[in-house]
Amino acid sequence: MPSHEERLQALGIELPPPAVPKGVYRNVIVTGNIAATSGHLPSDESGNLIVGKVGVDLDLDAGFAAARSAGLAILTSLREELGTLDRVVRLVKVLGFVNCDPDFTMQPAVINGCSELFRDVFDQEEGVGIRSAVGVTSLPLGVPVELEAMVEITG
Amino acid sequence: MPSHEERLQALGIELPPPAVPKGVYRNVIVTGNIAATSGHLPSDESGNLIVGKVGVDLDLDAGFAAARSAGLAILTSLREELGTLDRVVRLVKVLGFVNCDPDFTMQPAVINGCSELFRDVFDQEEGVGIRSAVGVTSLPLGVPVELEAMVEITG
Amino acid sequence: MPSHEERLQALGIELPPPAVPKGVYRNVIVTGNIAATSGHLPSDESGNLIVGKVGVDLDLDAGFAAARSAGLAILTSLREELGTLDRVVRLVKVLGFVNCDPDFTMQPAVINGCSELFRDVFDQEEGVGIRSAVGVTSLPLGVPVELEAMVEITG
Repeated sequence: MPSHEERLQALGIELPPPAVPKGVYRNVIVTGNIAATSGHLPSDESGNLIVGKVGVDLDLDAGFAAARSAGLAILTSLREELGTLDRVVRLVKVLGFVNCDPDFTMQPAVINGCSELFRDVFDQEEGVGIRSAVGVTSLPLGVPVELEAMVEITG
Repeated sequence: MPSHEERLQALGIELPPPAVPKGVYRNVIVTGNIAATSGHLPSDESGNLIVGKVGVDLDLDAGFAAARSAGLAILTSLREELGTLDRVVRLVKVLGFVNCDPDFTMQPAVINGCSELFRDVFDQEEGVGIRSAVGVTSLPLGVPVELEAMVEITG
Repeated sequence: MPSHEERLQALGIELPPPAVPKGVYRNVIVTGNIAATSGHLPSDESGNLIVGKVGVDLDLDAGFAAARSAGLAILTSLREELGTLDRVVRLVKVLGFVNCDPDFTMQPAVINGCSELFRDVFDQEEGVGIRSAVGVTSLPLGVPVELEAMVEITG
């Protein structure tokens, strides 16, 4: 079986640079055998935050891509903290907030952008965890999605 | 003292069939002595999702009933994963999202629909945990509530 | 090094009276070496809930002050449960909901009101944890912010 880092490489995924916290918090905390992350925001290839509401400024595909981008930022943060993603035993949880209008109801399809990434990197069995996806009225700096994650790690 | 399963039966509660995940996630994950669930959605007696906004399409009683329904779906998921609800030591947490308009402020009364169920099934001491209840702009597939839970379990 | 309680005193901070749960839940639960709290609401100096939307009824400074107030209520709850804040080893997480309009995007600056308090009380290293801050359409009883926290504790 390939390791998580090998799988990431095989998928041709290049992780973005570390996220700079937008307030008084840190990106990751390790407690016991759990590593949990702050809410992460999506960026474009130039490193600029993606902004706009899903269903208004971004269509479903762009929302999916934004969720994937936030997922990549989470992977960067985990690698920074753990040294290597190979210390991740499995995904525990994703909590995904979608910035949208009151009539948008496809939050699961948006957050799949992150969930499919984690499944591909951590594998079908260990890469699929629990999840909640909700639609919120606004997010920091106008981003379309904010995602936090929790993983089990080796000692 | 009656067990959780005995109490469920004494209350005349019949649990709904297992929920089918609406995206790339699973219903429950066990890590250490904690079982945590994904966000669960409410269904009517025919198994169809309940939809609408609380305070607009559903009154407070219907919102309360929807939260109870999501709570029942959580109990089904926990029993599926654990084999029996008797492995639940106590409720740790409920996080409840209510789909509503900006002027609706009775989220606690809505989420009580789930919290009173858990109190009745797991008993006053072990069935009352921590909780947050918030009002959100929209939820997956248009449901009025989405609830996730965390419980302590025996090994 | 001063203890957390000594630092609280040196900062001249007086904690508010214990919060009364607004529904079927308790303020704090301890599981293993983690103490986690329910969503806490902000109050003014007379003990009345602060109400209104940030960016509409409350400006950024008032939102910051409300988040600090909710943070003080969390400290009260933790002290009630643990006997003393000196049992807190470090902050793990804050989850902050801001009641606001769709165009308000400064949630991080609002939630800093709580995060800066925790940093001042628990110190720079142990008082800065992970965090998510989101904007929601409405909150219980019309409050501008709701915050929950998780800390590591000694046995």
